[in-house]
Amino acid sequence: MAGNTFGNIFKVMTFGESHGEALGGIIDGCPPGIELDFEAIQNEMERRKPGQSAIVTQRKEADEVQFLSGIFEGKTTGTPIGFVIPNTNQKSDDYSHIQNTYRPSHADYVYEKKYGIRDYRGGGRSSARETASRVVAGAIAKHIIPDIKINAFVSSVGELFIDKPYQDLDFSLTESNPVRCPDLATAAKMEEYIKTIRKEGDTVGGTVTCVIQNVPIGLGEPVFDKLHAELGKAMLSINAVKGFEYGSGFCGAKMKGSEHNDLYNPDGTTKSNLSGGIQGGISNGMDIYFRVAFKPVATLIQKQDVLDNQGRIIEQQGKGRHDPCVVPRAVPIVEAMAAMVIADFYLLLNKVKNI
Amino acid sequence: MAGNTFGNIFKVMTFGESHGEALGGIIDGCPPGIELDFEAIQNEMERRKPGQSAIVTQRKEADEVQFLSGIFEGKTTGTPIGFVIPNTNQKSDDYSHIQNTYRPSHADYVYEKKYGIRDYRGGGRSSARETASRVVAGAIAKHIIPDIKINAFVSSVGELFIDKPYQDLDFSLTESNPVRCPDLATAAKMEEYIKTIRKEGDTVGGTVTCVIQNVPIGLGEPVFDKLHAELGKAMLSINAVKGFEYGSGFCGAKMKGSEHNDLYNPDGTTKSNLSGGIQGGISNGMDIYFRVAFKPVATLIQKQDVLDNQGRIIEQQGKGRHDPCVVPRAVPIVEAMAAMVIADFYLLLNKVKNI
Amino acid sequence: MAGNTFGNIFKVMTFGESHGEALGGIIDGCPPGIELDFEAIQNEMERRKPGQSAIVTQRKEADEVQFLSGIFEGKTTGTPIGFVIPNTNQKSDDYSHIQNTYRPSHADYVYEKKYGIRDYRGGGRSSARETASRVVAGAIAKHIIPDIKINAFVSSVGELFIDKPYQDLDFSLTESNPVRCPDLATAAKMEEYIKTIRKEGDTVGGTVTCVIQNVPIGLGEPVFDKLHAELGKAMLSINAVKGFEYGSGFCGAKMKGSEHNDLYNPDGTTKSNLSGGIQGGISNGMDIYFRVAFKPVATLIQKQDVLDNQGRIIEQQGKGRHDPCVVPRAVPIVEAMAAMVIADFYLLLNKVKNI
Amino acid sequence: MAGNTFGNIFKVMTFGESHGEALGGIIDGCPPGIELDFEAIQNEMERRKPGQSAIVTQRKEADEVQFLSGIFEGKTTGTPIGFVIPNTNQKSDDYSHIQNTYRPSHADYVYEKKYGIRDYRGGGRSSARETASRVVAGAIAKHIIPDIKINAFVSSVGELFIDKPYQDLDFSLTESNPVRCPDLATAAKMEEYIKTIRKEGDTVGGTVTCVIQNVPIGLGEPVFDKLHAELGKAMLSINAVKGFEYGSGFCGAKMKGSEHNDLYNPDGTTKSNLSGGIQGGISNGMDIYFRVAFKPVATLIQKQDVLDNQGRIIEQQGKGRHDPCVVPRAVPIVEAMAAMVIADFYLLLNKVKNI
Repeated sequence: MAGNTFGNIFKVMTFGESHGEALGGIIDGCPPGIELDFEAIQNEMERRKPGQSAIVTQRKEADEVQFLSGIFEGKTTGTPIGFVIPNTNQKSDDYSHIQNTYRPSHADYVYEKKYGIRDYRGGGRSSARETASRVVAGAIAKHIIPDIKINAFVSSVGELFIDKPYQDLDFSLTESNPVRCPDLATAAKMEEYIKTIRKEGDTVGGTVTCVIQNVPIGLGEPVFDKLHAELGKAMLSINAVKGFEYGSGFCGAKMKGSEHNDLYNPDGTTKSNLSGGIQGGISNGMDIYFRVAFKPVATLIQKQDVLDNQGRIIEQQGKGRHDPCVVPRAVPIVEAMAAMVIADFYLLLNKVKNI
Repeated sequence: MAGNTFGNIFKVMTFGESHGEALGGIIDGCPPGIELDFEAIQNEMERRKPGQSAIVTQRKEADEVQFLSGIFEGKTTGTPIGFVIPNTNQKSDDYSHIQNTYRPSHADYVYEKKYGIRDYRGGGRSSARETASRVVAGAIAKHIIPDIKINAFVSSVGELFIDKPYQDLDFSLTESNPVRCPDLATAAKMEEYIKTIRKEGDTVGGTVTCVIQNVPIGLGEPVFDKLHAELGKAMLSINAVKGFEYGSGFCGAKMKGSEHNDLYNPDGTTKSNLSGGIQGGISNGMDIYFRVAFKPVATLIQKQDVLDNQGRIIEQQGKGRHDPCVVPRAVPIVEAMAAMVIADFYLLLNKVKNI
Repeated sequence: MAGNTFGNIFKVMTFGESHGEALGGIIDGCPPGIELDFEAIQNEMERRKPGQSAIVTQRKEADEVQFLSGIFEGKTTGTPIGFVIPNTNQKSDDYSHIQNTYRPSHADYVYEKKYGIRDYRGGGRSSARETASRVVAGAIAKHIIPDIKINAFVSSVGELFIDKPYQDLDFSLTESNPVRCPDLATAAKMEEYIKTIRKEGDTVGGTVTCVIQNVPIGLGEPVFDKLHAELGKAMLSINAVKGFEYGSGFCGAKMKGSEHNDLYNPDGTTKSNLSGGIQGGISNGMDIYFRVAFKPVATLIQKQDVLDNQGRIIEQQGKGRHDPCVVPRAVPIVEAMAAMVIADFYLLLNKVKNI
Repeated sequence: MAGNTFGNIFKVMTFGESHGEALGGIIDGCPPGIELDFEAIQNEMERRKPGQSAIVTQRKEADEVQFLSGIFEGKTTGTPIGFVIPNTNQKSDDYSHIQNTYRPSHADYVYEKKYGIRDYRGGGRSSARETASRVVAGAIAKHIIPDIKINAFVSSVGELFIDKPYQDLDFSLTESNPVRCPDLATAAKMEEYIKTIRKEGDTVGGTVTCVIQNVPIGLGEPVFDKLHAELGKAMLSINAVKGFEYGSGFCGAKMKGSEHNDLYNPDGTTKSNLSGGIQGGISNGMDIYFRVAFKPVATLIQKQDVLDNQGRIIEQQGKGRHDPCVVPRAVPIVEAMAAMVIADFYLLLNKVKNI
């Protein structure tokens, strides 16, 4: 089945290409009677949108979300919430040079082969611009779980990384710098590094860490829809993501059981939390934390060999306005997807509990 | 919604607790007219089952799958395939000591809190025994994609790892040793290490790498059901998994775009394959490869502090027969889940293509 | 997608052919902690099974359901409930004569054409024996909604019908006669008529009416998953069903709005109930009632022209033990499907309410 | 789960209230490379929209569909097709009188009780205006199955009905009269009758019959997702529908098997077609035909007792512009839903066949 739907109880379907008329989506299953904070929703849009600082792409996109249904006098009604984000800044001519070529490590080639046709303007559906719709849905999802705190931040850029446990970070600093790294000393180095990369016409990868706090016990549906399995799918569905780990993650694979086990306190909390707040696919009430790996953006403002649709390798220079490093703008997207997953399981849990 | 269903076109629902009457499942959507190789199916069961060597648990489980429907004169009929795997070796008394206690880093506690009731015998539904049903489904899925080669193997145990690219490995050696590591020198060290760990009553984690070859272009359904997102979810749903990465994975997050991009050959293949055979969530025809991190088994044959249901911390010694290292037995499970994901998208692709 | 799954929150997948090893299914999403009344479940099986009286088929089937998982010490655990119903009385030789022929108005021909292969013994998957699994699932669903009363009964056989509103019937009489018609005078005529039909080697159709009482307001999910739309689908999925109507049904299509509208009482109940307890796809708290049309069983114990797989029309005499009229045995099946639909929406409603 | 999604392979999600900003939807799973006939799509919109003749409501709605994505240079791209239909003619003041009252046999009351909040303007989500989105999706679905002919028509209004088998009708006459009845003599009587009803400020019900021709063998997925079960659900999900029957329908329930069975011709077609083109839930290649019962529109332009939200019964006169008989405008909606069901199964069938 076509894969543009996410979630079960809180269900979201999205549409939209980078340079079409508009992006948008429908949220079905949002509980009724929720007073929406439209400023908070638009604020999430601003965090994701390009042109916010010197280290992200300078494209201007208004990214204003218009709600078309499901809301009456400021409150959700329980009916589907339709929304659109008009594409106001499509410079399609920027992209005419890629009409017949497939850029390395882009989705151009596979879209052409899979569908036999593609909207080549700005990457079409494969553009990260698609994530704008996710941010809208995530911002609404956050209204369902106001007591659960979701904080994502940039934890590494290239070889630079925060050398502290998340417990030592002040999440209120995340938005204080353009990298969205709450460790200010590291943030400064990252910013400098991204500027250098940008001057080279190159790009660089990084990681985003997300911490979810004040989580009720019981979220997650084994055996296939485990909480971390859905979080992992959600994150891996974001453009440019190459890996996901939660709790001890890949490090845990090197450890012994006697080191790794989280011993209990009498109240059911645990002394350590290598489990990352999830046991057997179900939240245990401790902090959930996970890390998401993003590859470097594939579009370079350097000359590069590309393939054309005649099977020729030709040299091409990237044009347009692209991000030298995707992770600062990925932070609100990671949070949005996390909010959608948590809200979905939260709604389901309430059901199960109330029988 | 309860999470015991996997897949869309090739859909599998499973049931069963470790010490109930039986495990089993239903496969709905298997195409008709496929001649099943029952020996191959049972062989996959043998690979997963305990008691195969000195480095895995010595529990004896027959693990014989009985097919109840959907097959006529040896061929699939297109109707649902029901199957059961009787639990013949339930020593329930082995588990009476855990009736009122929650073992560290086990699912005991969250099942009790989520459901208010649990089958404590052998972990119940949270037991890795559940994966036997997955192996049956995966073995049947392999029949749908006979030309696609799926090879998983143990790539690390604790700090020991294969120091070679997968291209230099001979997958036919994977089954030649109890660790299921195709690099024999490393395999020998791993085996030795696991034996040591076992003597200590301890356990150790590891990683499984999986390589999928001869894949058609076009598998995967953006934007949410990307091929690697579904593979990631599938792997993360396996017991004890803490992380998933494909292609360059977490290493890719440290790289520059100019290093990371996979340049094309004129035929559409790529010179490098840091992408791991997937672009924009769609297979590009190159090898797919990914790595799965498993934590150390939580049950130790050492004394450990556990929580009881009166809120007391008491010392307990693990009993029963447990794996000192889960990864050798995880190899067929990883392959099974990969086969289910690939078969599901393969069936869907054929549809899309033939309009 | 293959269509052997029913329901969303209370989800059921079934398998099984008439003459295979066993029928069975999995129920996923049954809330935990429910004490099951196994006698009540088996009793539903007895109501459906053949050989109960002189007017139904004399096949003997034990129809004993075995539960394999999801139940611990008599209570549901919230994990999937797997069950099997062994086929103990398969007389496959009875059916060898139909191996190469397609009986009129049977599914033989379409199964052969759709799947290219079919289990011809007793109709295989298309046999009404498949409904045994539905009855198990329905019996468990009834445990979730103990306060909601579901009463189905035979309302017509051929041209004979109950000439009273359901309010004038005593549902406790339904099981008092083999026709399952609570109007005893009509029941006697129906029984006589079915015996006559049987002697002729013929069959006859009929209708089943179902009344659902004590229903909470709010069940149903517009705009596609309206309560009556799901009830309709559920009923139409039962073998031999040709039509479904609720409330005023087809009669309502002849009426004027001024006659048809149900005027309110001050407490929100309505004076009349032509709506059948559902407005806009949502239960309004009044009685839900609907009527289901069953065609006459296609297998006759008369000579009939059949088609063989060489394209020849040949005369054939039906063998085996068949029902002259399907509606008496359909009563528990209609109730089971209704219970599954109501329980599914009930679980969802509770969720929505508790935000 | 919220119920605003329809279909599996060809999946449609809709949104929109009668008097909100816009209606709309997303179609996910439409195959790529289809050249869309936008005139044909808009033409379907015109057939559904109000104000077309003297016997339907005189509301003016532009009902212009705007496509926002999934189409490139006039062809579908395989990505989701987002569309909106702006609400240009919302006279919200027309509806202020119903803000605090519940009209008999309307959804007002149950929406208020289920969701605790409702957009009372024009019925909100429960308005038949919602079906505009269905017509868009159906018009696109028809592009997938160009060889399959779907013809719906008004077969009865009140007590007036077409007294001929559908084989004797000329479907090209359906659009020749405002009732959409291809039997012109009956059409004239129906038109006269509806005008009378209208003058009375009353409404009347009716039936729509739909015939689907040139259907491939094999559509439908037993045992739950039988072709007629999905068609039934689709039809029952349309506003005001009270019943569905296919083939012999409720009449079949009165017949004997010896009368009802459809004998074969040597080529696999059948001499009669009481089965209605479906056996065991699978299309058999014969014409599919079914009948849908619509109740009279609940809103009367007469005085009527209504309930207010203080539990008082008060007299109220319907205002606004309403249909005296819904069936003429229901014809394109029935066709649209039929097209969606058939296209969905058609896409799935192709998959199964090409393994």
